[in-house]
Amino acid sequence: MIRIGTVGTNWITQQLVEALALSKRYELAAVYSRHEDTATAFAAKNHAQASYTDYRDMLQQADLDVVYLASPNSVHFEQAMQAIAHDISVIVEKPAFSNRQEMIAVQAALAQHPQVKFFEAARHVHTPNFHAIEKALAGLTTVQGAALTYMKYSSRYDDVLAGGTPNVFTPEFSGGALQDLGVYPIYLAIALFGEPTDVAYYPTLIATGADGKGLAVLRYGDFDVSVSFGKTSNSYAISEIYGLKETITLDSVGELTHVEQYDETGTVQNLSQPDLANPMLPEVVDFARVLTAPDDAQNQADYHRWMAWSLTANRVLYQLRVSANLRFPADDND
Amino acid sequence: MIRIGTVGTNWITQQLVEALALSKRYELAAVYSRHEDTATAFAAKNHAQASYTDYRDMLQQADLDVVYLASPNSVHFEQAMQAIAHDISVIVEKPAFSNRQEMIAVQAALAQHPQVKFFEAARHVHTPNFHAIEKALAGLTTVQGAALTYMKYSSRYDDVLAGGTPNVFTPEFSGGALQDLGVYPIYLAIALFGEPTDVAYYPTLIATGADGKGLAVLRYGDFDVSVSFGKTSNSYAISEIYGLKETITLDSVGELTHVEQYDETGTVQNLSQPDLANPMLPEVVDFARVLTAPDDAQNQADYHRWMAWSLTANRVLYQLRVSANLRFPADDND
Repeated sequence: MIRIGTVGTNWITQQLVEALALSKRYELAAVYSRHEDTATAFAAKNHAQASYTDYRDMLQQADLDVVYLASPNSVHFEQAMQAIAHDISVIVEKPAFSNRQEMIAVQAALAQHPQVKFFEAARHVHTPNFHAIEKALAGLTTVQGAALTYMKYSSRYDDVLAGGTPNVFTPEFSGGALQDLGVYPIYLAIALFGEPTDVAYYPTLIATGADGKGLAVLRYGDFDVSVSFGKTSNSYAISEIYGLKETITLDSVGELTHVEQYDETGTVQNLSQPDLANPMLPEVVDFARVLTAPDDAQNQADYHRWMAWSLTANRVLYQLRVSANLRFPADDND
Repeated sequence: MIRIGTVGTNWITQQLVEALALSKRYELAAVYSRHEDTATAFAAKNHAQASYTDYRDMLQQADLDVVYLASPNSVHFEQAMQAIAHDISVIVEKPAFSNRQEMIAVQAALAQHPQVKFFEAARHVHTPNFHAIEKALAGLTTVQGAALTYMKYSSRYDDVLAGGTPNVFTPEFSGGALQDLGVYPIYLAIALFGEPTDVAYYPTLIATGADGKGLAVLRYGDFDVSVSFGKTSNSYAISEIYGLKETITLDSVGELTHVEQYDETGTVQNLSQPDLANPMLPEVVDFARVLTAPDDAQNQADYHRWMAWSLTANRVLYQLRVSANLRFPADDND
């Protein structure tokens, strides 16, 4: 069993902990929260072996194989660096780091700790429906880009409209729509099409100074991918990948709930795989494979592929912010 | 009855002629085609009073009130200028003219012939469903832009792939996806939101040198409108206008077949008006009102509004081309 510690106690960590249990590959060795009440309540609810209010104590005392980071984006870097220094592997929620500088420092630390594995928790690109899209894409003779949309009103935007500054909507916590929702379609584009040659970002700014919604353009030479996302409005449109006369459609870029393909006559074929018990289950199973058998050739190949996606996503998110002159306090060391 | 002459004999002119008949406001006084066989066949089929193979002869001899131009885009300007010089009103298929220069010259000619009316046949912004969208938009307290998509594979692209250069896909005829399909969502955006403060265009070029598909960004300060269109692939996605928690959706930007509104709970309400007998009927009825009662206050107001849309669409289409460095031979007099 893989001994894991968690950082963060909101819905995404709860979902992760349930996925860990379903996978039967992990034991929840420790949970961390800054607040003792929150830490003990989360530990009790999820039968964790221990709870901590000091992150370093957890790394030193809990005998962890891996730590899962679902803290505010701006904190990922420091927490990942400490875990790596303690020879503990890291699963970090997307987007992994605030900027290029941080990712480069993490890469250097990983090179010094070659047994440590690093995973970015881009759950959707580990799902069976992602693999169904990959397979359908490989069957197209011509690829003419895609239009990916992920836009869902966040109740936290009610707080912003009332004058508040919730973490996910503030530059101080490296927040905003690009980091929080844009990362899903951008990861998907990178996993399917590789690194774009050029990018542009058209954000719509909100009262906190962050982007509440936006339109990103990823250019690939032969085609473009348009990426629409936002937390201040609701979209009901499907996402699409364009062949010549064929079109692959997908529902909900974050969950990839439904995948279909239209042929040239407009006839539609359902490519969807069975529903998942938990949307994070495939990624934690994938990560467990690599953690328990790191020298297996397939696991090595997968690990390098995921790392390449993570590095590319980090570059692209950063280039998009730069193109729109959107800076975070975390960028001050650039 | 309004005496009308037509230029062009393809499907769009056929549809227009049928709309004219349904309106009971026009008589088909003359049809023009360069080729005698085509002219006489089209005239016979549609019970036209006369047919011509010389455009100037038609203007001089057919006693026309108005001429309808559905020639290749690059020819609109010369044909419109001749009609105006003969004190004949003009209905021109969208996009009216190739560039700013041509539109400015037409404006000057119209100023010299104040009795002549000029209409751009943007059929969709005359439909009951367009007015349903306008009304729904007016009911939103917040507007956060829109994503408009109009992408349909053209059989003419088969010709391009086989090495051909069909008019609609060549710069020589001021063709391409922006002019041919992009004009619909761009007109819709202008009619709903006014003139953008800034624009960008990301075209995908095809073998003819024209844009086969593309992504346009219309910026309005407080929000952006993304516009996706193309003739080399098929889209099945709805278009959307974003309120705060409400979203207005529309099917087929060219025809506006279906309009719905989602409220903040995700409940959908159908705002669609009854299907049209002919998608061009509302515009020809609108134009007939102005031609027969030009001094009516409502007709004057509508005419000025339509003219403003046409001038703005001309500017925006041109700015989009300039932003992407897409030039037509018709621009050589710039």
